[in-house]
Amino acid sequence: MAEKNKKSIEEKSLWEDARAMLRKAEQDGVETAWDRLEQQTPHCKFCELGTSCRNCVMGPCRITAKMPRGVCGADADVVVARNFGRFIAGGSAGHSDHGRDLIEVLEAIVEGETKDYQIKDEAKLRRIAGELGVADAGGGALAAVARAVMEILYADFGSRKKEVAFLGRVPEKRRAIWQSLGMTPRGVDREIAEMMHRTHMGCDNDAASTLIHAARTALADGWAGSMIGTELSDVIFGTPSPKKSTVNLGVINQEQVNILVHGHNPVVSEMIVAAANDPEMLARAEAAGAGGINVAGLCCTGNEILARRGIPMAGNHLMTELAVVTGAVEAVVVDYQCIMPSLLQAAGCYHTQFITTANKARFSGAVHFDIKPATALAQAKEIVQLAIDGFSKRDPQRVEIPSQPVEIMTGFSNEAILNALGGSLTPLLEAIKAGKIRGVVGIVGCNNPKFQQDSGNIGLTKALIQRDILVLVTGCVTTAAGKAGLLLPQAIDQAGPGLQEICGALGIPPVVHFGSCVDNSRIIHLCALIAEELGVDISDLPVAASSPEWYSEKAAAIGLYAVASGIYTHLGLPPNILGSPAVTDLALNGLESLVGASFVVEPDPDKAADLLEARIVSKRKALGLPK
Amino acid sequence: MAEKNKKSIEEKSLWEDARAMLRKAEQDGVETAWDRLEQQTPHCKFCELGTSCRNCVMGPCRITAKMPRGVCGADADVVVARNFGRFIAGGSAGHSDHGRDLIEVLEAIVEGETKDYQIKDEAKLRRIAGELGVADAGGGALAAVARAVMEILYADFGSRKKEVAFLGRVPEKRRAIWQSLGMTPRGVDREIAEMMHRTHMGCDNDAASTLIHAARTALADGWAGSMIGTELSDVIFGTPSPKKSTVNLGVINQEQVNILVHGHNPVVSEMIVAAANDPEMLARAEAAGAGGINVAGLCCTGNEILARRGIPMAGNHLMTELAVVTGAVEAVVVDYQCIMPSLLQAAGCYHTQFITTANKARFSGAVHFDIKPATALAQAKEIVQLAIDGFSKRDPQRVEIPSQPVEIMTGFSNEAILNALGGSLTPLLEAIKAGKIRGVVGIVGCNNPKFQQDSGNIGLTKALIQRDILVLVTGCVTTAAGKAGLLLPQAIDQAGPGLQEICGALGIPPVVHFGSCVDNSRIIHLCALIAEELGVDISDLPVAASSPEWYSEKAAAIGLYAVASGIYTHLGLPPNILGSPAVTDLALNGLESLVGASFVVEPDPDKAADLLEARIVSKRKALGLPK
Repeated sequence: MAEKNKKSIEEKSLWEDARAMLRKAEQDGVETAWDRLEQQTPHCKFCELGTSCRNCVMGPCRITAKMPRGVCGADADVVVARNFGRFIAGGSAGHSDHGRDLIEVLEAIVEGETKDYQIKDEAKLRRIAGELGVADAGGGALAAVARAVMEILYADFGSRKKEVAFLGRVPEKRRAIWQSLGMTPRGVDREIAEMMHRTHMGCDNDAASTLIHAARTALADGWAGSMIGTELSDVIFGTPSPKKSTVNLGVINQEQVNILVHGHNPVVSEMIVAAANDPEMLARAEAAGAGGINVAGLCCTGNEILARRGIPMAGNHLMTELAVVTGAVEAVVVDYQCIMPSLLQAAGCYHTQFITTANKARFSGAVHFDIKPATALAQAKEIVQLAIDGFSKRDPQRVEIPSQPVEIMTGFSNEAILNALGGSLTPLLEAIKAGKIRGVVGIVGCNNPKFQQDSGNIGLTKALIQRDILVLVTGCVTTAAGKAGLLLPQAIDQAGPGLQEICGALGIPPVVHFGSCVDNSRIIHLCALIAEELGVDISDLPVAASSPEWYSEKAAAIGLYAVASGIYTHLGLPPNILGSPAVTDLALNGLESLVGASFVVEPDPDKAADLLEARIVSKRKALGLPK
Repeated sequence: MAEKNKKSIEEKSLWEDARAMLRKAEQDGVETAWDRLEQQTPHCKFCELGTSCRNCVMGPCRITAKMPRGVCGADADVVVARNFGRFIAGGSAGHSDHGRDLIEVLEAIVEGETKDYQIKDEAKLRRIAGELGVADAGGGALAAVARAVMEILYADFGSRKKEVAFLGRVPEKRRAIWQSLGMTPRGVDREIAEMMHRTHMGCDNDAASTLIHAARTALADGWAGSMIGTELSDVIFGTPSPKKSTVNLGVINQEQVNILVHGHNPVVSEMIVAAANDPEMLARAEAAGAGGINVAGLCCTGNEILARRGIPMAGNHLMTELAVVTGAVEAVVVDYQCIMPSLLQAAGCYHTQFITTANKARFSGAVHFDIKPATALAQAKEIVQLAIDGFSKRDPQRVEIPSQPVEIMTGFSNEAILNALGGSLTPLLEAIKAGKIRGVVGIVGCNNPKFQQDSGNIGLTKALIQRDILVLVTGCVTTAAGKAGLLLPQAIDQAGPGLQEICGALGIPPVVHFGSCVDNSRIIHLCALIAEELGVDISDLPVAASSPEWYSEKAAAIGLYAVASGIYTHLGLPPNILGSPAVTDLALNGLESLVGASFVVEPDPDKAADLLEARIVSKRKALGLPK
């Protein structure tokens, strides 16, 4: 079976650095995600269709034409809706728990429990406080303003609100749609817990009702959990501004102590960066024979410190195992989410230390630090010391660092965009109206070994910019776009004439790095700002979203909050819903009449580009704009 | 396949009322849970072992000896732990969301938004307020005290607390254990959301760590979500006190309009009872030719109004479809949880109206009322009117009401027990010390068609009381014990000499009805009170728990909070964890060294009685008590 599913190394990834490491992994006997996908293919059809249920022990059950109902009586529609609801709850919980962690750091700052973290962007804090209705947000004592913001955002994780705090950012028309559908997100954890309740046996047994609550749960992620994660990260670590950096496995430095930070939350990785820049640690590295300490990023933790500090990016999701295979990594320091458990085994094949830092993400056998705000920097120094200690254990015979780093431009945020535009959205809107920028598409999400790595991410990105559609990237698409050279101003060569003119004038790339996966909240916020400026709903805008190679529950939650926010969203492969005609039809069609947007599934990037362009053209037409 | 799994009607249920209706269901062409279990057997081995994973779309994956890891690298231990963690989150979410609903009703009372609900047990409210540290709890204005309690309990659903409010009830030794393990429940929704986060790909990849958080999540259910549900239901609807009622399908009344209330939360069913007692509604029923309006209960909503109002109980989980098959039910009115979706089809075979009342539990095709506190009674009257209107549509040719009702004693609460004991636990403790009551076992939970209905529930109950072990029942075991005649004082004939003496003197049955499934919080509270009185930990007590025929995620959550509270817990069948040696060993053994209790799985009720007795004997011995 596995033989039939075997892909060549070229089929596995678009990239030379990946291919070199896949060859080395074979030699070194390191198993990768592709190997395991071979084993796991074909997948269970029931789980794939969403028609297996194990939500109670009268089952487990499987729905087929001959067995149309589970023991409880649930049919395919109910079973698929329940499973999808929990899938969305898992994704929303990840982002939202991340957001809560940032509030806890803000609390530690406010309570004076830490000096390792400070408020770096006071202006942004005061601006947010103003939005949230904090009294004297502009002039009050900083600590008092911070405390007030903390209280308001903590309350988003409670059960007392009729709607989460940042809903003031949402156009009135959109809020009215949510209100009429019972989709207004009230509390982050509440919607998640209710989603779990509804999907218990004998609760919600109407697929549409379950899906509407799934959308509410996802909206609580997008407009609260994730948005709080983004906004407070900016407040505490600084709002990203344009800068240069580099990307691909070539950023791993043969001469230096290499520390890769992986996961999603900047709270730990920022401290690792600070510790690695500490003169004493640098002196120790030198004493150990290293030419310095090199911190590089993986996945979204990588995106966070790339956008704020210009720390180089070693790779995205499917590069995480391969980065270890270079044999030149002293430590992989992880927080949480998307960290393949196999990384521990991969690290074990080399001298690499695998270090966990979050109590909610333990890995059996890893070195663990329970990092707390009060002691974070000191603990980060201990971790860096472990990496320095590991440098001498590196086996030069087993080191291979493939390819040269590619330069990228990063650090875009809504603030940075406004700044680039001279302080107002007007130039952007004028460019859109004139058809120089025909539309905007956010391409976000993951890698999935079911696709040739990054072929979908890059194929779609290139196809869109050629059509004068501006692309915003976050998450793992960042690394893809960066490696393809698309995150540089000179990439306008590959864009249509309109983008060439506008991006050329602004000195920005046609593909703009907007941060990590939680930072998709920046994109929906930007959409809301544009809609407000034009006096329309988000669903009226010539914008769309895409996740060509998504794999995670979080990506599904992002997709669903995008759709529920009125943004047509393309997925490269479907979630496990195809076993229910009702759920599938709702996702692909029915949502359009409810929330003014729907999903579309298309694995081929060129066909996807056609679909997204057609959507943008239809929205332009409805706004009376040229094609 | 189905033929091989076919059971005779006698093998399906212990009860004559069930058997008669199973025969009628066959004649009437009504499908039941047993029919569907036949179809669904054998179950998928992967889902049954817990080794299938669909938490991302790199999969779905299945773990086998040949495929020992999923695409992400998760092994059987991680996959099983993740699945079990989500199973517990589902159960905890059900109870906890129920608890929140009671707080919302209290809020509606405090805010003056409803007159349909009042504070019925002011003394209990003030007592709870005192426990929770409310200033002037005994003498303050009732509304102010109620508001303060509401605020404190709402905060249990937030992220600001280090521990939930009722943890003051937990013995110090137990709290220290939780603290040292990171198992102290902080917030109800928070633990659920964190459970979902931890089980996302790439977070918690250590089975023990995941299970400890599962226990924390379950503790948030037991000592917060469920306990709030119980305590506020008592405050709003009155604390149960001993009373007589009746049980089995014979409580359905041929001459009257029959309304069955089903689900878990008394908020709606109390209003249905009130509406059915309204003189105007009774007059309308009479005008329709009915001899009255008969409300009877199913499952836990049934337990709630049975314990507080003495409303008769028609049946437990597997009787819900069969109750409709009598052909004499005008309306089934449901709130949420454990309501088989098949009930809608069963109702459709007769004139029965299936009426939903909770927005979070919609059933495609049902008549829906969005019941709100402000208008609850008026809406309940509309529902009762629908039932009255249905009376004339009943087809007498299709009516068959089997068996005569059995009398039961109900209405025990900790307050009622204390009252029966003369205001102090001392007589109970003396009886335990003297070995007249050798121990106490709570037998709780469900029906599961994998067992002959109620054979395990009854077999174990009888075996334990014969051994002078007092049995407390909740949930669906109530109906079982009631139908067996065990909920009557004269059932002491079937008990050992010690129980005969003590229960005889107190005039109570040897099997004591303690309420609904959320009311298992009464049992852990009672255990805590006894432990405190004796100056020991809960795990030192000669007590145990059992769920012989459990089926639901909530039952698993109850089991886990019992174990984590130090109570040895028997299950009639295992959860879907056997695919992981690590998880299974932790559940059956390892938890013992961590929390001083573990699970034991045994389908045979007599063998289970031996195990529970042995446990009680060992605990008695350790306390220096006679065997």
